[in-house]
Amino acid sequence: MVTDFPTIARLHAAYAAGATPEEIVAGVYGRLAVVDDPGIFITLVPEAEAKAAAAALGPYDPDTKPLWGVPFAVKDNIDVAGLPTTAACPAFEHTAEETAFAVQRLLDAGAILIGKTNLDQFAMGLVGVRSPYPPPRNAFDPAIVPGGSSSGSAVCVAQGVVPFALGTDTAGSGRVPAGLNNVVGLKPSLGTLSSHGVVPACQTLDTISVFAGTVADAEAVYRVMSVFNPADPWSRDPSASRRPSAVPPGLRVGVPDAAGRQFGGDALSEAAFDAALEDLQGQLATAPTPVDMAPFFAVASLLYTGPWIAERYQAIRAIVEQRPEVLHPTTRQIVQGASAYSAADAFAGLYQLKDLARQTEALWNAVDVLAVPTYPRPRSVADLAADPIGPNSELGTYTNFVNLLDLCAIAVPSRFRADGFPAGLTLIAPRGRDGLLSALAARLQAAADIPIGHSQTPVPAPGAAPERATDDEIELVVVGAHLSGMALNPELTGHGARFLRAGTTTPDYRLYALAGGPPERPGLLRVAEGEGVAIDTEVWAVPVESFARFVAGIPAPLGIGTCFLADGTTPRGFIVEAEGLKGAVDISRFGCWRAYQASRTPSSPS
Amino acid sequence: MVTDFPTIARLHAAYAAGATPEEIVAGVYGRLAVVDDPGIFITLVPEAEAKAAAAALGPYDPDTKPLWGVPFAVKDNIDVAGLPTTAACPAFEHTAEETAFAVQRLLDAGAILIGKTNLDQFAMGLVGVRSPYPPPRNAFDPAIVPGGSSSGSAVCVAQGVVPFALGTDTAGSGRVPAGLNNVVGLKPSLGTLSSHGVVPACQTLDTISVFAGTVADAEAVYRVMSVFNPADPWSRDPSASRRPSAVPPGLRVGVPDAAGRQFGGDALSEAAFDAALEDLQGQLATAPTPVDMAPFFAVASLLYTGPWIAERYQAIRAIVEQRPEVLHPTTRQIVQGASAYSAADAFAGLYQLKDLARQTEALWNAVDVLAVPTYPRPRSVADLAADPIGPNSELGTYTNFVNLLDLCAIAVPSRFRADGFPAGLTLIAPRGRDGLLSALAARLQAAADIPIGHSQTPVPAPGAAPERATDDEIELVVVGAHLSGMALNPELTGHGARFLRAGTTTPDYRLYALAGGPPERPGLLRVAEGEGVAIDTEVWAVPVESFARFVAGIPAPLGIGTCFLADGTTPRGFIVEAEGLKGAVDISRFGCWRAYQASRTPSSPS
Repeated sequence: MVTDFPTIARLHAAYAAGATPEEIVAGVYGRLAVVDDPGIFITLVPEAEAKAAAAALGPYDPDTKPLWGVPFAVKDNIDVAGLPTTAACPAFEHTAEETAFAVQRLLDAGAILIGKTNLDQFAMGLVGVRSPYPPPRNAFDPAIVPGGSSSGSAVCVAQGVVPFALGTDTAGSGRVPAGLNNVVGLKPSLGTLSSHGVVPACQTLDTISVFAGTVADAEAVYRVMSVFNPADPWSRDPSASRRPSAVPPGLRVGVPDAAGRQFGGDALSEAAFDAALEDLQGQLATAPTPVDMAPFFAVASLLYTGPWIAERYQAIRAIVEQRPEVLHPTTRQIVQGASAYSAADAFAGLYQLKDLARQTEALWNAVDVLAVPTYPRPRSVADLAADPIGPNSELGTYTNFVNLLDLCAIAVPSRFRADGFPAGLTLIAPRGRDGLLSALAARLQAAADIPIGHSQTPVPAPGAAPERATDDEIELVVVGAHLSGMALNPELTGHGARFLRAGTTTPDYRLYALAGGPPERPGLLRVAEGEGVAIDTEVWAVPVESFARFVAGIPAPLGIGTCFLADGTTPRGFIVEAEGLKGAVDISRFGCWRAYQASRTPSSPS
Repeated sequence: MVTDFPTIARLHAAYAAGATPEEIVAGVYGRLAVVDDPGIFITLVPEAEAKAAAAALGPYDPDTKPLWGVPFAVKDNIDVAGLPTTAACPAFEHTAEETAFAVQRLLDAGAILIGKTNLDQFAMGLVGVRSPYPPPRNAFDPAIVPGGSSSGSAVCVAQGVVPFALGTDTAGSGRVPAGLNNVVGLKPSLGTLSSHGVVPACQTLDTISVFAGTVADAEAVYRVMSVFNPADPWSRDPSASRRPSAVPPGLRVGVPDAAGRQFGGDALSEAAFDAALEDLQGQLATAPTPVDMAPFFAVASLLYTGPWIAERYQAIRAIVEQRPEVLHPTTRQIVQGASAYSAADAFAGLYQLKDLARQTEALWNAVDVLAVPTYPRPRSVADLAADPIGPNSELGTYTNFVNLLDLCAIAVPSRFRADGFPAGLTLIAPRGRDGLLSALAARLQAAADIPIGHSQTPVPAPGAAPERATDDEIELVVVGAHLSGMALNPELTGHGARFLRAGTTTPDYRLYALAGGPPERPGLLRVAEGEGVAIDTEVWAVPVESFARFVAGIPAPLGIGTCFLADGTTPRGFIVEAEGLKGAVDISRFGCWRAYQASRTPSSPS
């Protein structure tokens, strides 16, 4: 067992302290030898080549290359130029000519590729044992399936071989193995990671996913990769999903109602889920809302019993029609089922989905996030040998519906079952709210008080809740009567704005008391270098819908532009037209509006 | 021939002058007798019943009932409670129990239903002769097909029987018959009119459409019906599409390039299209851009040669599988072709569409509107008797791709062919820009100087465009790259903003070209009295929800404050920090950013 988990932060600390990337790469291969699981990799980059890539990185530069010197692995249905892509089907093997768009972003950011990982053949399965290669061993219990289809990537991270690995996720392949191996599985909003260079499973539903030891690492990797790719027709604008978020104090979470709690009778899993909900409750101001899961389960059932199986058929049509014998028997059995469906059936399925999707939409008026078990109960390798289909379907209970409904999700480790096997919680939200899920997931993983993956490294405390606006807010710098406790502050609080942080501007401003009034109004003027001072400010987060009305109500000569703060941020802030400074009094010497006001009302209590 | 066309405005003028709705209804049946075309209606409401509905309207009240006393017809694939729905298939006939959602909105607004109109069976066709009922006669030339599938509705309006009628549009059924009968055919953004109560053709592509004598009437009817219907899974938020718009001065229009001009060798149609383009050019500041139509034609070919035919099969599956003999022979032949397609083919078709759609997206960065012929050339009833398929496909050349690409469109009458037969132009834009299309179409119909439909009533001059923001919008003054037709204008249009009015500032401003860039940016500085000039501006209405994000994205030294306009209004507008003017060039002498930019690119054509 590898006891230390190499988070990106720890690697970067080592680099800052003088470690070389060749040393770090050597450590990766050393850990791999300790783990001794021949099922993880289908293609391992020779150690010398990985070291050569490390040596070619140039000087340590985490600012321009945020993944500088960070080793990683990718699932073997994702192309890397010069390496074979097998999708766990030896007959499909071919050498990729081009590196997948998302992987190229990682390499450009300084990450070092170690190899291509094992999977359920053609990403079809949630178990990790539908592969002609030896299946990876579950990091916690070799009797239990590793989970799939991204089995090798999940185990590789859980065993501390690399800080992160890429998977893919159509029905849950980026989440189920995360849950079964105690790592984070980030399944982003569809289209925000380009699928260019990925072997398709169901093109309407596929996404690359990220396995990592911590939420922060998964999010950092996601942010590097999530770049719009105009050459990929499935690529969609990732900007909403990329936006970092905080957990709003009033967050509303839904959880399965009594009928929606499905653990296959496994009391240990049920108890672990309740423990996870306790940790969740600790992060919330209000109790979770029980949610009727029936429409979600109905959507899930479309995926393997409806015409979507034909997408999988279409993806490997030449093989299915010309060389079906080269397929894994279970894969073949499933995909050949597609021939029963006509084009009319396919559209009928799309209509059913549309109906069900509309039914589920109302939920998102009542809750912001849905929290479910990542998987109902662990299933054994023996279970799957006896019945290759049933246990696989059960594992997808809480994952199958997510991509069909265009939701985003993150599987996050939670308190272990009483038998020491990892459980796991999955958070789900409408597309674009990926940042919110990560913010909540980071708190939950820390609250669970468990180590990372199969290591003994504790989960670092999440950074102090960012004093930053959420997705639905805009940061606004105020310097005058809108400061907390002053006359116009209710214009902010009355519109749902919340205080974020105090601070000063860069020393490039003059503060004026404008002519006219009452009320007296300040003018904050940016001036040339050396001519200004730093002015005290407050930064507030204003809900988007209120911000527009707020801006619309600001009288001349004031307006809203960019404010340069000493902390390096540049939120929106009040600016003033030069013409409006006629007759204004320079009050910069006070350093802030509050002190200036105090100086004018000597009788008021200080 | 009916010489007077009953626009809504003329009916309301008559009501205001004391006419009764019973008299107006009597006029409808009188006109119908004059027209003497037994093919228009499949079910005609008895005159006494229509008069009873008219009598039940209560006092004239056009404010709360904007369609008070306005007679209309609906295509017979749209349900009206108590009346039979046939979809032009007698074996399908059944009495509707519920009135279609959109029709109910019309009735609630005071409109009076006259009957259910003939169509190509199950809305499958663009010719209007694929019906077991006698086909309606083209209003201009009975030797020419009326166009379909909404044949009865288009002819009914063209003949001046009613001011408006509903059709449906999947492949062009709301546009081709409009073009062939000299009426307006409004084909809105998909989902903005609920299809609840409509017999499906291709559910992923179907919409209700509006036929009317004038654009203003079509738009008024559309606005009454476009209400979100949560019970309909295909219903989508109509607010962007409902918003009234004006034609921005810098509007960019695309037209088919040489290869995209397809008239089947008909010189009269080609000349008529060029005449329409002349009228179009008269409305624009810049010449239209030639557009490569190849990807659009490729999309169009998917509709009848690809798996979408299976949607039509699915829609009437029970009939096709159990009683195919009751179908029109051409309908049967087409729909039975669906059995050749598997579910895998259906997904392959969706993938092809996705690819092609991405290829067409780039166009919408270069043009705001695409203007095409409504149909290539008139085809005769005899042509269709000889070949039921080929001429039908040709008629869809410029319509088939529109719904597959989720675009909105409007067919607008244009100058007649030299032989006196109507031609017609169709304007196309990305979804949500319906208001822009109507604004341009209204100008074009007036400019064509032709009568309404087959009447002798001239097209009234288009009403003054609405020049103020609604409650859900904020007025924004732009002076630089956000002007219509300029580089950053898509930041506005892409967020649902609409052009309101052009104008100048008060003569108190200096305009600067800021240092830095590209892109070059303007700074509008308010100065002391007597030191400034008036600067040309455009005022845009920005939806509130977009305005906040827009403001949040403006880089220093620019901001949003108050702009003082010569018309006395003080909308939000760009202001500039004084410090940002370092190195800026005073370009006030140009009077506007557009002239300054033109002065800098002397080689570009004027």
